[in-house]
Amino acid sequence: MFSFLDDYSEGAHPDILQALTGSNLTQESPYGTDSHSQDAVLRIKEHLGTGFQGSIHFVASGTMANIISISSCLRPHEAVIAVETSHIVVREAGAIEATGHKLITVPPVNGKLTPDAIEGALASNAHFPHMAKPRLIYLSNASETGTIYTLAELRAISALAKRRGLLVFLDGARLGAALASSKNDVSLEDIASLVDLFWIGGTKVGALLGEAIVVNNPMLAEDFAFHIKQRGGMLAKGRLLGIQFQQLFGPKQLFTSLASHANVMAAKLASGILATGYQLSADTETNQLFPILPNGVIAALQAHFSFYVWSKFDEDSSIVRLVTSWATEEEHVNAFLRHLEQASHMEHSH
Amino acid sequence: MFSFLDDYSEGAHPDILQALTGSNLTQESPYGTDSHSQDAVLRIKEHLGTGFQGSIHFVASGTMANIISISSCLRPHEAVIAVETSHIVVREAGAIEATGHKLITVPPVNGKLTPDAIEGALASNAHFPHMAKPRLIYLSNASETGTIYTLAELRAISALAKRRGLLVFLDGARLGAALASSKNDVSLEDIASLVDLFWIGGTKVGALLGEAIVVNNPMLAEDFAFHIKQRGGMLAKGRLLGIQFQQLFGPKQLFTSLASHANVMAAKLASGILATGYQLSADTETNQLFPILPNGVIAALQAHFSFYVWSKFDEDSSIVRLVTSWATEEEHVNAFLRHLEQASHMEHSH
Amino acid sequence: MFSFLDDYSEGAHPDILQALTGSNLTQESPYGTDSHSQDAVLRIKEHLGTGFQGSIHFVASGTMANIISISSCLRPHEAVIAVETSHIVVREAGAIEATGHKLITVPPVNGKLTPDAIEGALASNAHFPHMAKPRLIYLSNASETGTIYTLAELRAISALAKRRGLLVFLDGARLGAALASSKNDVSLEDIASLVDLFWIGGTKVGALLGEAIVVNNPMLAEDFAFHIKQRGGMLAKGRLLGIQFQQLFGPKQLFTSLASHANVMAAKLASGILATGYQLSADTETNQLFPILPNGVIAALQAHFSFYVWSKFDEDSSIVRLVTSWATEEEHVNAFLRHLEQASHMEHSH
Amino acid sequence: MFSFLDDYSEGAHPDILQALTGSNLTQESPYGTDSHSQDAVLRIKEHLGTGFQGSIHFVASGTMANIISISSCLRPHEAVIAVETSHIVVREAGAIEATGHKLITVPPVNGKLTPDAIEGALASNAHFPHMAKPRLIYLSNASETGTIYTLAELRAISALAKRRGLLVFLDGARLGAALASSKNDVSLEDIASLVDLFWIGGTKVGALLGEAIVVNNPMLAEDFAFHIKQRGGMLAKGRLLGIQFQQLFGPKQLFTSLASHANVMAAKLASGILATGYQLSADTETNQLFPILPNGVIAALQAHFSFYVWSKFDEDSSIVRLVTSWATEEEHVNAFLRHLEQASHMEHSH
Repeated sequence: MFSFLDDYSEGAHPDILQALTGSNLTQESPYGTDSHSQDAVLRIKEHLGTGFQGSIHFVASGTMANIISISSCLRPHEAVIAVETSHIVVREAGAIEATGHKLITVPPVNGKLTPDAIEGALASNAHFPHMAKPRLIYLSNASETGTIYTLAELRAISALAKRRGLLVFLDGARLGAALASSKNDVSLEDIASLVDLFWIGGTKVGALLGEAIVVNNPMLAEDFAFHIKQRGGMLAKGRLLGIQFQQLFGPKQLFTSLASHANVMAAKLASGILATGYQLSADTETNQLFPILPNGVIAALQAHFSFYVWSKFDEDSSIVRLVTSWATEEEHVNAFLRHLEQASHMEHSH
Repeated sequence: MFSFLDDYSEGAHPDILQALTGSNLTQESPYGTDSHSQDAVLRIKEHLGTGFQGSIHFVASGTMANIISISSCLRPHEAVIAVETSHIVVREAGAIEATGHKLITVPPVNGKLTPDAIEGALASNAHFPHMAKPRLIYLSNASETGTIYTLAELRAISALAKRRGLLVFLDGARLGAALASSKNDVSLEDIASLVDLFWIGGTKVGALLGEAIVVNNPMLAEDFAFHIKQRGGMLAKGRLLGIQFQQLFGPKQLFTSLASHANVMAAKLASGILATGYQLSADTETNQLFPILPNGVIAALQAHFSFYVWSKFDEDSSIVRLVTSWATEEEHVNAFLRHLEQASHMEHSH
Repeated sequence: MFSFLDDYSEGAHPDILQALTGSNLTQESPYGTDSHSQDAVLRIKEHLGTGFQGSIHFVASGTMANIISISSCLRPHEAVIAVETSHIVVREAGAIEATGHKLITVPPVNGKLTPDAIEGALASNAHFPHMAKPRLIYLSNASETGTIYTLAELRAISALAKRRGLLVFLDGARLGAALASSKNDVSLEDIASLVDLFWIGGTKVGALLGEAIVVNNPMLAEDFAFHIKQRGGMLAKGRLLGIQFQQLFGPKQLFTSLASHANVMAAKLASGILATGYQLSADTETNQLFPILPNGVIAALQAHFSFYVWSKFDEDSSIVRLVTSWATEEEHVNAFLRHLEQASHMEHSH
Repeated sequence: MFSFLDDYSEGAHPDILQALTGSNLTQESPYGTDSHSQDAVLRIKEHLGTGFQGSIHFVASGTMANIISISSCLRPHEAVIAVETSHIVVREAGAIEATGHKLITVPPVNGKLTPDAIEGALASNAHFPHMAKPRLIYLSNASETGTIYTLAELRAISALAKRRGLLVFLDGARLGAALASSKNDVSLEDIASLVDLFWIGGTKVGALLGEAIVVNNPMLAEDFAFHIKQRGGMLAKGRLLGIQFQQLFGPKQLFTSLASHANVMAAKLASGILATGYQLSADTETNQLFPILPNGVIAALQAHFSFYVWSKFDEDSSIVRLVTSWATEEEHVNAFLRHLEQASHMEHSH
């Protein structure tokens, strides 16, 4: 049974395993000071523009990247503005609040945060000193539902932040998928110039583990390593993380090509589903898609594939979520579409 | 200019000042072990029923009472369920999150939390272990908008909590006003039997300062003093707090009579406003009322009284908030109604 | 039985109670914006020099003042350097750690922190990023054992702090006693120019409650009120705190005269004890003294006075602690010395 | 230049890399629910005795294991007792304090915590409620200096803990080395029966990363996964951690054999050093040794090997630290001893 549940069901791209194996017995210095991490930092910096004055750090998980990034730049009374569907709001077991900070939530528009929503949050949290002070804007690109920010949208948020004395942080768990989207007009260099800190997800784009936190703001960069250590995010064998990003940003640019592959597989699934006569509940911008299928069809597909039934659509049909990954092969997509067509015929013949 | 802004604009009931003065030079032991605090505890216990096995503690402020109560009974991964208009959600500068806990918010019904809303919060926060674990129900009685819980409502919430393994905490900043409401059918003994811990507000019912935390649950009571000390809530001269509650729960039962007075003044204001031909945006159950007044009338009244303009009602009129207190005199109420009538005539003569 | 246990066994100086009573029914605005607090701020500012650019805030307790002051100026990875006998280290139930910060402790010299000890702490906590970053120097004046800092000592610590990028915070629970010491050469203006923030204790110098936090550093001052609110330190009836400091810093300068009185009583006790033929284990610089008395004498005195037996001195004698206060009367001192002499005769006649 | 700096300079045992490669493209469920993690749990359980009722969890780093273990079992007012040389005290950037808990430190005896020291900590932290409540005993085996606990020592501490209502936690960063020591008489089953929770270090015994937390106490086990998620310790590809421990506790019992190898190399180094005529500053019980060498000899060795100069011994000599690992080969040991002998001759010929 093939899984479309998520984009972290497989191990790592083979190049990463080969690199691990090839360098295995070379002694390296610990805690991120190894040659692999240093090289990976240089490779990422090539994408950030010549003005980059900050620092780059590797940690093991996305929640860890969010904990460290957010808690490192806020004072105790400062709060985060985020859409109510955000990963930090609903999927991290209260990790940000556990570092002492309030999350101010606003409704998303197409999965995303908007300047209007930020202005609304500022207006309704302005009762000094009885309300926590809004200070950090949390974005994720791609968003929790797979939509992406345009350059104009990011610029508008960044400008608003400067005007209102706010910091901007971008969660890049699926930044690869966002940048590889056919609708994308944003580069890593744009992001580095528009936000104070962000991270580049490795786990969901073919690494065994690992996220690269990019601290653009030099004042935040200075003591950043303390926060990594204090939150338990510093690996003794930092080489493990360095090697992931050496490969992702190596000559093959796997970061881009693997993300692109996942998106292409998703687009193919989307086209096939539309061609079979079903609708999508939202445009497919990255590697997640949300078709609306009859419940009978869903049951038939579940005999062959795993995926999440996301929400009820009406009495007879539901929205399901399909996620493709760097490792999804075209034959899996074709098989899914074949089974969909069969199930569709069965459904119509009733 | 007389203020209807809040119920803490005046000092304390004169009996409290007299008691402070009368006992001033007697040496007392510190940190809440003084004779006044001990006596105040006994007086409050008389209202809690013979089965009470817990402990009672005095702290200086309501936010402090909330911080200590909530953080003392939760483990790091446990969250609070509260209505989104709650004081802890919107008026305490992120104080609960600063102790590490997530607030799960739900919409209020008439200012209050309902079993349905609690069940909803449990259902939408059940994704183990990715979502913080709902563990504590936060109520306030009276609610932030002055409405009160009936005994049936409290029993239903308490029963649900037992069934679902939740704790219940009641913020009693205006518990006096709630219990003195003409619509109230709840006693302190009822509350002690239905919630795990709660506090009895002194500040808003005629004390200089002070809230009495009642810890019903004996397991939570055991180490409670540590939390008070650790959060900075323990006064060296604990006698100051003990004396407030000795008087509030002394022979005159000021706790009841002062709250009742404030409610009667509010009811009189409400009747007068209705008689003048204006509406209230909500029933007046305690010492807060929310009349809807033409903007011209509001402007005229503001020359003589201070009060909050709460929200826009329509193009020409707004909802204002009036709060009465233990110290509001009947003549202030009469003056307000007189000015209202005048302003109303002016308005109609336009 | 008269108590020499501490300096917070009595209520408040009568002027404070009179001021509370006299202003009781005047309506005031809440949360520290009242006229009394504003006036008290102005009165304190008169002592801080014309260069003062910071802010002044009132809170209810010393632990609260420490929690707010320290947590407001540190980032998560930053630690506090303090002597191991400090109040924050051994008497506040882990309050500072509860805000997330490590305490780096060093041995005291005559109860005090020294530049050498600070340099030692820096040297042994320099392993970046594996050790928390030393950032704040915590002093208390008077120290936990009643000794005081000279101007030269404070200047040396302040200069070292500037050189090494550290902040300085001074806990002034007994600052009145320190400044009123016959050995003192420091003024409030000196302190305001040498530390980043400090607080002036009211509770131990004749107030019912209350400590005034002086934030000299303008960058720390800006958002300070948020921290007070978030930690539960903001009283609705802020007038209560304002009135304490209006009186302490009023025309009678009670802050100075009451502290001075306590010190004089302590000096008189010390002279009498020496005259009776007993030794002190340390010089008496403020309102605490530590005589070494035979155990038999101690037992005899305990029939008439309460005080702490501090530590064993040798097989036959112990060090006791005697504390005088603003309310200690000369007759209590005389009575103590009389009983001491009697007990001494009894002892020698064995 | 060969490094004796630490035991985490190399990658992983080749079997681990082979297992990663072999299973790479199989889809697995995320967050520790994968087949590898489940199997690894079963393999570890085989060592814990039939009475084991708890749970086992994998996290990426030792600091993370300490953060999660300690914060999961303490209430806010509870403190940890640890020797002042402990990793959590001096090498984790304030990670435990960042979760809100005080560390009560005591001097070590031969690197270890003793019942006497624990009793001392209890006695000097008993001032209720002004001192944080001692609640958790922190041990590490091997200790920070490489010494190990005997079964009798662990039993004495465990018995004391039960008697005094304390929990016991054991940091096993180098538990492999401890259990493989020639002086060891403790088994994993013993530990599981004597402490409330502990962890088995993988990183320092040949894994790429990973520590296995064993929660013996069923009450602590129940919600443990929440804490892992909340602190950022849960990897999406949990398979990565499962595979490490599947191999360490697989048929070859690498956990034991790799640790044993490191210890044997250390013992060989120690014998050689003694044979050359130098002393050790402490017995070598595991894979760390602390020879005392002339400064000239140290300088000569540093041309060929890296290692830490630990502390000054006298004017002419210093204590150095040598650490062996699972990957240290006999030829490296021989080379070191050869260079030592040469340098020794040079030294004597001066």
